[in-house]
Amino acid sequence: MAPIFKKHTSVRDYSRRIVDESIIKDILDAAIRASNTGNMQLYSIVLSTQPKIKDALLPLHFYQQMVKQAPLVFTFCADINRFSQWCRLRGTEPCYDNFLWFSTALVDTILAAENAALAAEDAGLGICFLGTTMYNAEEIAKVLNLPKGVVPVVTMVAGYPTDQTIKPQPTERLPFEAVVHFEQYRRYTDEQIDEYYSQIENLDKMKAFVADNHVNNLAEVFTQVRYTAKDGAAFSEKYLDFVKKSFTI
Amino acid sequence: MAPIFKKHTSVRDYSRRIVDESIIKDILDAAIRASNTGNMQLYSIVLSTQPKIKDALLPLHFYQQMVKQAPLVFTFCADINRFSQWCRLRGTEPCYDNFLWFSTALVDTILAAENAALAAEDAGLGICFLGTTMYNAEEIAKVLNLPKGVVPVVTMVAGYPTDQTIKPQPTERLPFEAVVHFEQYRRYTDEQIDEYYSQIENLDKMKAFVADNHVNNLAEVFTQVRYTAKDGAAFSEKYLDFVKKSFTI
Repeated sequence: MAPIFKKHTSVRDYSRRIVDESIIKDILDAAIRASNTGNMQLYSIVLSTQPKIKDALLPLHFYQQMVKQAPLVFTFCADINRFSQWCRLRGTEPCYDNFLWFSTALVDTILAAENAALAAEDAGLGICFLGTTMYNAEEIAKVLNLPKGVVPVVTMVAGYPTDQTIKPQPTERLPFEAVVHFEQYRRYTDEQIDEYYSQIENLDKMKAFVADNHVNNLAEVFTQVRYTAKDGAAFSEKYLDFVKKSFTI
Repeated sequence: MAPIFKKHTSVRDYSRRIVDESIIKDILDAAIRASNTGNMQLYSIVLSTQPKIKDALLPLHFYQQMVKQAPLVFTFCADINRFSQWCRLRGTEPCYDNFLWFSTALVDTILAAENAALAAEDAGLGICFLGTTMYNAEEIAKVLNLPKGVVPVVTMVAGYPTDQTIKPQPTERLPFEAVVHFEQYRRYTDEQIDEYYSQIENLDKMKAFVADNHVNNLAEVFTQVRYTAKDGAAFSEKYLDFVKKSFTI
């Protein structure tokens, strides 16, 4: 397997080193070469590099300093605006503002985003995806001047790691057989779940992580600290309300 | 830029040549190395190779023969079932069955899928993504024995092209500047839309495609033949109804 597929780790500290225009172009070219539905290209990529825009995005990504530090901030957006404008200009009514096409556009957006990520890493940059994009999508849309029909999905920052950045080892994933099913989905027994997850839970760094969060176990870190029911419900409603301005769901 | 990012074309004819186990493992390993939210791995990959399963999937993908021909059929699914079972086993209530987490799981599923696609191509295989997965998600879920909390998102077939397969040139995309925006989204003038799309519309093969479909222009091929309002509305409702069995939307 090519090394590029094995070495991904998220980079969260970036140097001020400028990224060559040719690398930026390669990243964007790689993105648009990804598969997409019917070659409709129902996405747009907004690349922000100016401090003014990045500073406006920073609080919307909950002050993750990467947004300020990293020279490149890519916001990947599902986009039916451009395609719809083309249809109308050609005298035919577009019909892509429903849940199926939201999901389809989202797929195509992310296929492009992952190509961009791998191309960036292949060029020696570090990257990090920010899931916070969905949390403040409407506010991000305002900063980026997105019209109706364009929904931010995910943000990727990219740049060179600092000299001080200790390149971490790839994050431990669940064992292969926990995620992959052959022929049909294999319903998990509790014993299997216990076995798969305990491999991660038993790592020293995970035990320390649980202790730092003052909860009983790793699952509680997720449900009671990082991604709680209360926050999830609020941000879910907020994102859905915003998506509904462009799509009928 | 590494050639892998430039050469994608969808392959729709497959030989019977068997794919080595080591390549299959590389594809799946690449998939699970992709970025994902909080390392929660909210996806599952079902790899179907047996004629019995593939034959059952075939009509659900509208008899696209690739499903039968290609040795590998990967169904990528958003999955909150496994993570939720783990939370409950650890005595805490999961809270990921809302729109935000459907969208988040979908992102993570596709990041993994695109890694799988590139790894397959890097190993000399051809691939094709099938968007039909969303059209018959519930029926596909039955064939693959998916529990509640697991939603099929996209299918990728993979295998060796036939000797007769003429490796097509990469599909023409919109010009770079149509899809990429610097700093903020640039609202398109009708003149710009006309310029961007006419580059594709004016290709001889596209003119023939329009003529074959007995419509006036390429936009009408989309809205009146390939992806009509009537079909879109019906399949959208069907997919949403199915997704709502796992997620509150």
